[in-house]
Amino acid sequence: MTEVMEELALANRILAHEGVLDAFGHVSVRHPTDPGRYLLSRSRSPLLIEPDDILEYTLDSEPVRPAKAHLYAERVIHGCIYQARSDVMAVCHHHAPAVMPFAIAGKPIVPVFHLGATMGEDMPFWDQYDEFGDTNLLVVKQEEGHSLARALGEHNAVLMNRHGATVVGGGAKELVSRSIFMCQNADYQLRALALGVPQPLHRGEIKLAGAINLLPNVVTRTWEYWSMRLEAAGGMPPRRSSAKAARRPMPKSSRVTPRERRKGRRR
Amino acid sequence: MTEVMEELALANRILAHEGVLDAFGHVSVRHPTDPGRYLLSRSRSPLLIEPDDILEYTLDSEPVRPAKAHLYAERVIHGCIYQARSDVMAVCHHHAPAVMPFAIAGKPIVPVFHLGATMGEDMPFWDQYDEFGDTNLLVVKQEEGHSLARALGEHNAVLMNRHGATVVGGGAKELVSRSIFMCQNADYQLRALALGVPQPLHRGEIKLAGAINLLPNVVTRTWEYWSMRLEAAGGMPPRRSSAKAARRPMPKSSRVTPRERRKGRRR
Amino acid sequence: MTEVMEELALANRILAHEGVLDAFGHVSVRHPTDPGRYLLSRSRSPLLIEPDDILEYTLDSEPVRPAKAHLYAERVIHGCIYQARSDVMAVCHHHAPAVMPFAIAGKPIVPVFHLGATMGEDMPFWDQYDEFGDTNLLVVKQEEGHSLARALGEHNAVLMNRHGATVVGGGAKELVSRSIFMCQNADYQLRALALGVPQPLHRGEIKLAGAINLLPNVVTRTWEYWSMRLEAAGGMPPRRSSAKAARRPMPKSSRVTPRERRKGRRR
Amino acid sequence: MTEVMEELALANRILAHEGVLDAFGHVSVRHPTDPGRYLLSRSRSPLLIEPDDILEYTLDSEPVRPAKAHLYAERVIHGCIYQARSDVMAVCHHHAPAVMPFAIAGKPIVPVFHLGATMGEDMPFWDQYDEFGDTNLLVVKQEEGHSLARALGEHNAVLMNRHGATVVGGGAKELVSRSIFMCQNADYQLRALALGVPQPLHRGEIKLAGAINLLPNVVTRTWEYWSMRLEAAGGMPPRRSSAKAARRPMPKSSRVTPRERRKGRRR
Repeated sequence: MTEVMEELALANRILAHEGVLDAFGHVSVRHPTDPGRYLLSRSRSPLLIEPDDILEYTLDSEPVRPAKAHLYAERVIHGCIYQARSDVMAVCHHHAPAVMPFAIAGKPIVPVFHLGATMGEDMPFWDQYDEFGDTNLLVVKQEEGHSLARALGEHNAVLMNRHGATVVGGGAKELVSRSIFMCQNADYQLRALALGVPQPLHRGEIKLAGAINLLPNVVTRTWEYWSMRLEAAGGMPPRRSSAKAARRPMPKSSRVTPRERRKGRRR
Repeated sequence: MTEVMEELALANRILAHEGVLDAFGHVSVRHPTDPGRYLLSRSRSPLLIEPDDILEYTLDSEPVRPAKAHLYAERVIHGCIYQARSDVMAVCHHHAPAVMPFAIAGKPIVPVFHLGATMGEDMPFWDQYDEFGDTNLLVVKQEEGHSLARALGEHNAVLMNRHGATVVGGGAKELVSRSIFMCQNADYQLRALALGVPQPLHRGEIKLAGAINLLPNVVTRTWEYWSMRLEAAGGMPPRRSSAKAARRPMPKSSRVTPRERRKGRRR
Repeated sequence: MTEVMEELALANRILAHEGVLDAFGHVSVRHPTDPGRYLLSRSRSPLLIEPDDILEYTLDSEPVRPAKAHLYAERVIHGCIYQARSDVMAVCHHHAPAVMPFAIAGKPIVPVFHLGATMGEDMPFWDQYDEFGDTNLLVVKQEEGHSLARALGEHNAVLMNRHGATVVGGGAKELVSRSIFMCQNADYQLRALALGVPQPLHRGEIKLAGAINLLPNVVTRTWEYWSMRLEAAGGMPPRRSSAKAARRPMPKSSRVTPRERRKGRRR
Repeated sequence: MTEVMEELALANRILAHEGVLDAFGHVSVRHPTDPGRYLLSRSRSPLLIEPDDILEYTLDSEPVRPAKAHLYAERVIHGCIYQARSDVMAVCHHHAPAVMPFAIAGKPIVPVFHLGATMGEDMPFWDQYDEFGDTNLLVVKQEEGHSLARALGEHNAVLMNRHGATVVGGGAKELVSRSIFMCQNADYQLRALALGVPQPLHRGEIKLAGAINLLPNVVTRTWEYWSMRLEAAGGMPPRRSSAKAARRPMPKSSRVTPRERRKGRRR
């Protein structure tokens, strides 16, 4: 569990450092051994999340153990999607600047470059107003979460009207790369409009290119890159408390700072 | 008072670090116990303001105590609004890049996403030229300040032709989040234009979503996030001189740097 | 002279740090006591310039003392303008990203906000091809420099076709703020196009607002702000060698780093 | 060889730090003494590459010595171009955000400013689909690499449909500056569209300006600038292991950090 919590804290911070999350947004993973539970931080900005902030929730989005901390109001997004999609192991809800023009204009993001294909061929658009009328647009009720999960269906992501997006994955690393590549895709698609209406990849290309971010040499490369960028900015999460008590050595991948490496310390 | 001055210095620096203020712009708060006075820095770029720079002004924008320092030429913006709006406890005047296209084109910023609703349903547009003819566009005379305050009316913000914007709030934290979310909204609205003319939230949504940034778990989360970003950049303001003399411990929230936290020191 | 050279090195670095200069571009000042000479660095990227890099040139752009270092190929821009304009005390040539769309499209940058008025009401457009046919677009011959100076005339800046811009000022600080505000103006003007064709300030406003960046409290504020941003990034120039030998104390304005200030050391 | 490997690591990191490469993209150089081989890193994000990561390949893109590390799937791009173009000494494949709108819209990047002329007068556009139908868009087969090399022909760069670009040069430094200036050109061309359809330089200007980045004072200036920016960010590569064993002093150009320089240590 320590490893899972540390990876989840790192995933939050990577997505914040890469511009997907800001003061808002949250990332969860399904419990590694109990599919009826999920792990999510207490209410805190993702860039600051530590392993000790991670709480365990039932799929009804109730904390398993009583918690004194503020909880994310929108945690039902996570619980309702885990209920509806047994294949989903990780969920990210965000308001990334790159996707906001599409969420506001109600226009689809389509895969316009090979890495964007990880989003899938198309993406549903959900408007909370259609079913619930005037709200503050936050997804806080079970029925709102279920409605969003229905709209998501079997897709990899769903746009939320004037609000943001929710992305799912088969694990934390797949989720992180899908969320980042979807933002890059949205940015490129928007800027390409100045040159003409961009066309999506061919359907067969989407299927084939959609698997690139699962290739072992790609996963290794991207995770190392995003982690080192975070580390260079001084943003790596601390170890989990109990782990620290046990005085285990730092994981090899985060032991050497860029400065130390420059000075010649080898990994 | 020390706490108020330290929060005001921090508010200035947060807004500068988040791109709302630059070499220019200023933030004030109404005096916590005397509603006939307000607090504003001497003339200085907001990113550099220290608690000791904060001066006390009457609502006629005269310094309460004689000051040797340069004063902001546009401090009447603050005094005139505090005179006109007893509910306003904090004022920010800025030229944020995000709002400038709207201030220049004379087009309204409307709430296009949930957090932008904090601006309110609409925003007046004030052109100094209408009443005062050729000026250098700075708001430096009492009658200019009063004219701007009249244009603001009961709204949360006012656009100023080819100059910038002025935003008000019920306190420093509300003002900071409103100013930041208004800039995000302007940025999203402008970029969404490439996809079609963006429509505002429904009127009922604006009312409900406009209160999100007053939710306790939101205020806690955003203030911690913006403070930590500023701290990571080495930009936290120093303590107030007299406070330091008393050798009070640092406030808990700013005691641990990200580097120290990474190394495992717990809060 | 030491002070002039240190200010010129600082001006170069500020303009580079604020995004006006990059690997290219250069800034000169007229010699403080001999109007027939000017000061300009050896060929070096502006962010890296040190006081010891500064060389003295005649207005024919010949180094006064034999120099081993590479010289800027385009130094005739400076010499020819100092010959033509006795009021000009500082010159900056740059390819700032903000002005490039205008230099490429051949469209005028006009003052669309109060600080942009420092550019003046209009700005000539010079195309080297008109007089010299095919060249590599660098201004390296005396006749090319004189042609550019003629195009500049009595204006504050000139756009150069598919190349960049040259800006002049009554001193280094005026030049720095004019160059930065002109870039901000160009950026705002371009982005405002998405909302309609932006109109310039009224003629009388341009005259009045054009003097804002000469106000003492504005000069103090902007110079402190840009210097501290540079310092926070670790980019302040070293002292001049001979000055260091004399072991003079650091100037007050650059003695305390943001980190030290945060820890409570007072100026 | 140590020097070549260190320069190649540095070239990778400069291009990553300047925004041409990100988690993806790769840079190779032809072997300095054996034109039938080339040097390329193991599969790793360019910002992190160290001299010890560099492997030697045949022009069939087989590693000369057995390698345990992951290899770049797309290394055939390099091998096939070195086979087809004996004048090419360095190759960069990238997905820079600046070029993606053009790669997606299928519109040409043309030289619109003097430094952009290094791309040459025009640039072919290659669509993997034309010859190979549905793929994941990665160039991984020999026949795909040969097809791309044929499309490149005698040009300096080729756009790749919905994927990115490949750029070639007569050496690592020429390649680095060409790659950076091509991205700047693409950015300026796209933004200039808001003002009208930008025209390219005259044909004669392209030829003359295309050689600017080979001028000695330009090469010296740009390489120093990009290296120091990388160094200031803590990103310089470590020395090669064997070199370190020999305890050779650091090369002069990278010995002094900006901080040390600021404190007055002279080079």
